[in-house]
Amino acid sequence: MKTLIKEGDYIKLYLDNKRNWLLKVTKDKVFHTHKGVINLSNAIGKEWGSSIESNKGVKFYILKPTLSDFVLNVIRNTNIIYPKDAGLILLHSGIGPGSIVVEAGTGSGALTTVLAYYVRPTGHVYSYEIRKEFIEVAWKNIKRLSLEKYVTIYNKDVCEGIYEKEIDVVILDMATPWKVVPHAYESLKNGGVFISYSPTIEQVIKTVSALEESKGFKNVYTIECLLRDILVRPGKTRPSSRMIAHTGYLTFAQKVLREE
Amino acid sequence: MKTLIKEGDYIKLYLDNKRNWLLKVTKDKVFHTHKGVINLSNAIGKEWGSSIESNKGVKFYILKPTLSDFVLNVIRNTNIIYPKDAGLILLHSGIGPGSIVVEAGTGSGALTTVLAYYVRPTGHVYSYEIRKEFIEVAWKNIKRLSLEKYVTIYNKDVCEGIYEKEIDVVILDMATPWKVVPHAYESLKNGGVFISYSPTIEQVIKTVSALEESKGFKNVYTIECLLRDILVRPGKTRPSSRMIAHTGYLTFAQKVLREE
Amino acid sequence: MKTLIKEGDYIKLYLDNKRNWLLKVTKDKVFHTHKGVINLSNAIGKEWGSSIESNKGVKFYILKPTLSDFVLNVIRNTNIIYPKDAGLILLHSGIGPGSIVVEAGTGSGALTTVLAYYVRPTGHVYSYEIRKEFIEVAWKNIKRLSLEKYVTIYNKDVCEGIYEKEIDVVILDMATPWKVVPHAYESLKNGGVFISYSPTIEQVIKTVSALEESKGFKNVYTIECLLRDILVRPGKTRPSSRMIAHTGYLTFAQKVLREE
Amino acid sequence: MKTLIKEGDYIKLYLDNKRNWLLKVTKDKVFHTHKGVINLSNAIGKEWGSSIESNKGVKFYILKPTLSDFVLNVIRNTNIIYPKDAGLILLHSGIGPGSIVVEAGTGSGALTTVLAYYVRPTGHVYSYEIRKEFIEVAWKNIKRLSLEKYVTIYNKDVCEGIYEKEIDVVILDMATPWKVVPHAYESLKNGGVFISYSPTIEQVIKTVSALEESKGFKNVYTIECLLRDILVRPGKTRPSSRMIAHTGYLTFAQKVLREE
Repeated sequence: MKTLIKEGDYIKLYLDNKRNWLLKVTKDKVFHTHKGVINLSNAIGKEWGSSIESNKGVKFYILKPTLSDFVLNVIRNTNIIYPKDAGLILLHSGIGPGSIVVEAGTGSGALTTVLAYYVRPTGHVYSYEIRKEFIEVAWKNIKRLSLEKYVTIYNKDVCEGIYEKEIDVVILDMATPWKVVPHAYESLKNGGVFISYSPTIEQVIKTVSALEESKGFKNVYTIECLLRDILVRPGKTRPSSRMIAHTGYLTFAQKVLREE
Repeated sequence: MKTLIKEGDYIKLYLDNKRNWLLKVTKDKVFHTHKGVINLSNAIGKEWGSSIESNKGVKFYILKPTLSDFVLNVIRNTNIIYPKDAGLILLHSGIGPGSIVVEAGTGSGALTTVLAYYVRPTGHVYSYEIRKEFIEVAWKNIKRLSLEKYVTIYNKDVCEGIYEKEIDVVILDMATPWKVVPHAYESLKNGGVFISYSPTIEQVIKTVSALEESKGFKNVYTIECLLRDILVRPGKTRPSSRMIAHTGYLTFAQKVLREE
Repeated sequence: MKTLIKEGDYIKLYLDNKRNWLLKVTKDKVFHTHKGVINLSNAIGKEWGSSIESNKGVKFYILKPTLSDFVLNVIRNTNIIYPKDAGLILLHSGIGPGSIVVEAGTGSGALTTVLAYYVRPTGHVYSYEIRKEFIEVAWKNIKRLSLEKYVTIYNKDVCEGIYEKEIDVVILDMATPWKVVPHAYESLKNGGVFISYSPTIEQVIKTVSALEESKGFKNVYTIECLLRDILVRPGKTRPSSRMIAHTGYLTFAQKVLREE
Repeated sequence: MKTLIKEGDYIKLYLDNKRNWLLKVTKDKVFHTHKGVINLSNAIGKEWGSSIESNKGVKFYILKPTLSDFVLNVIRNTNIIYPKDAGLILLHSGIGPGSIVVEAGTGSGALTTVLAYYVRPTGHVYSYEIRKEFIEVAWKNIKRLSLEKYVTIYNKDVCEGIYEKEIDVVILDMATPWKVVPHAYESLKNGGVFISYSPTIEQVIKTVSALEESKGFKNVYTIECLLRDILVRPGKTRPSSRMIAHTGYLTFAQKVLREE
């Protein structure tokens, strides 16, 4: 049984690798491109991978957006997490189906969305955010993938404490992660994983110092990840001329029992 | 309710960031280190994150292995996939709870294990491997995480065809991925994702050519990922002196309907 | 004795790390910036490192351009060599005062300029270029640093042969370097260094194959170099967000005596 | 006229890209390898690029060492500068024939050797080193390339001051470069270039802060450079599996006139 595209679905309208867009299929809505106007209603009832023509006769493909398409195209008001970093967070923590995760801050909800996607169907993400206006945007992004029921967002400063106990993983993507180290310790179950994502090296140094001074964490390490596009065109294959040189550093640690 | 360590569990015995080991807790088994002998029976009944002493009085921590620990410590007879690449595979394809995935070859089962972990509880991984002896090793690695029921392994050459239809994602980690492009097309559902992981650029060029000649795939792109350790020691923070410079290139594509 | 700036000198007019320009000091010439107009005559007679004000009262510094400033700001009609790659060419070949070098093609003369600068005062650069219009531009760039007498440019296709013999180093920055391998062998002195700079991996593969098939070269190796800016701002130090991901691959080899 | 190898020359004895050695040709001296014994006397009178056989009949090539061979094979008692970083130092400062350069510390003399090589025949390198035993080793390395007359080494702490004035470039490769910023300012000519090479980010942050607080430097920037080997073997071309992930950060600045 093939799934057909229906109203309300998100599609990736694809012309080429540089010109493609994440769009919601809405009746009577048109999308303007340099290659003509696309009537999005025409996508309804088609199969994924079908093509559709603009009024100028140019063919566009209707692709199913992947998780990374959603992440890279969140409605945003903050820096977002990149798929490369989200992937490392999953693999280095083991967050997966059933995991109970605490996140702060919610920001635009890009990482929240990824976490909610992977803890399904029995896990949950508790996310803390102090800026009320960000929470609304985050919900919009989470709802695109219908992941609302796996997420709780608190309008609360995580530096004041974390409600949950016996948590699998605490992830901090915020200005002052080092202030949350004691709360993370209280909230994590034994052996649980602490993660911090920070753009500056001074944040990393303060966070690692806090982890080590707390005497409650071992296996503390920091990594950075660089992604490079390779342009494969037979006869003239080469890496892309430009790349993103830095997003953030990822610091990991595991909770251990403190000495009495 | 705290989970206590019991016989048969896998632990990460941790001395420091360079000296730590993935071990199975077995009664009456001892583990020899430069810092003395550890009686693994002593871990039984302890909490995760507890410490344990060697016969020389050196303290080791008992950490819960993460998914990346299992991936990096598979019993191996082939090159393995690295967590950084497995993370990109997840995020760029959306493989997650419920996904139906075809993989070839199985190899040591490192990637199979990651995939099985993430498709739980309603998805499945169908893995093809021609070398019978590899399959045994793969099962051992998959069983470490009790993921058997999410995996089917065929002792079959994927170049001859794929049994499954309407598959979400096909992943190839094998010498000649370009030969599988037509089978992948038949097996994938519309909009499904093709992924190839190859160490050499000639493999990539041949695979991309096959994808483009097939006229059945769009959104073809290739990436490589570099991971660098940052040694955070207040007052003398710096990247590690050495790093892995290359594992493999990842090529992605999405199935589209062919023109009639 | 301090050197004072005089008419005809090249200066680097510096506002900040993103807004600075390589300019020639010309009487009665003005330079327009978003921060006002600068009368370049005012630089005449000043010391290097002096400041100068625009008509809006904004202070600009007059810095002495470094070699990399000239390289990055050549009048160009082609891709240029980057300082990082030119530096590797020098160190890995030993091109220095007294070296006799053959280069093809001349292109915009960026690399020619660097080579001429370093072979002074007793070496020489022989450069081959088939496109006449490029030669004019190259001479303009070479003259900026008054290096004309160290350079000879031939309007000739290097694929047809190299006039010089007993050359220290042959450097190829052209579309088909593999075609020049036999000529380079004839032109180089025993032990001399062959260098090829190519943007695509197919060019590299063909060139390395030609070097190995010729049986006249050993110590064949290929490198690539990545440069990353670090933004050091106390309290918020981090790598720059973007970087150049690829310029070209550098292949080196050394001429050996062929077996009879 | 071909140059023939004579006693006292340094050769690069080459078996393959991983097995090659920088050696001094000495009468009656033999060199032991896994592929047999080489009598170095046999190299005398041969042309560069000749081959020579071990007593096991294995052929080795006699290559002329390049500057990077000397740099990577210095007799060492400290970390050395890598060719990639030395190349950037040259290009970003314009150090070349005729330049007057101050360096501290001398260390093993690897960078001193490069600088001396490039300032020939009319420039000079003044190098400061506090550890007497290092100076002896440095002289040995400098003498390998017969560059003694271009170098002066002081057994003196550069933190106490620099003797020279009107210097083109000051280069610091030492533990506390920030302490030398005021002396560098006094020593450099107007528009002169300050360079610091440091392995840790804390050193970089302190040095950049000192440069900015001094109000005597502009165009302050920091870079890092990554070099990757590409293994070009037709049909199985790929980057090398491992690479050096970090040597040091390079910080550059240019002296400007201070405000009165």
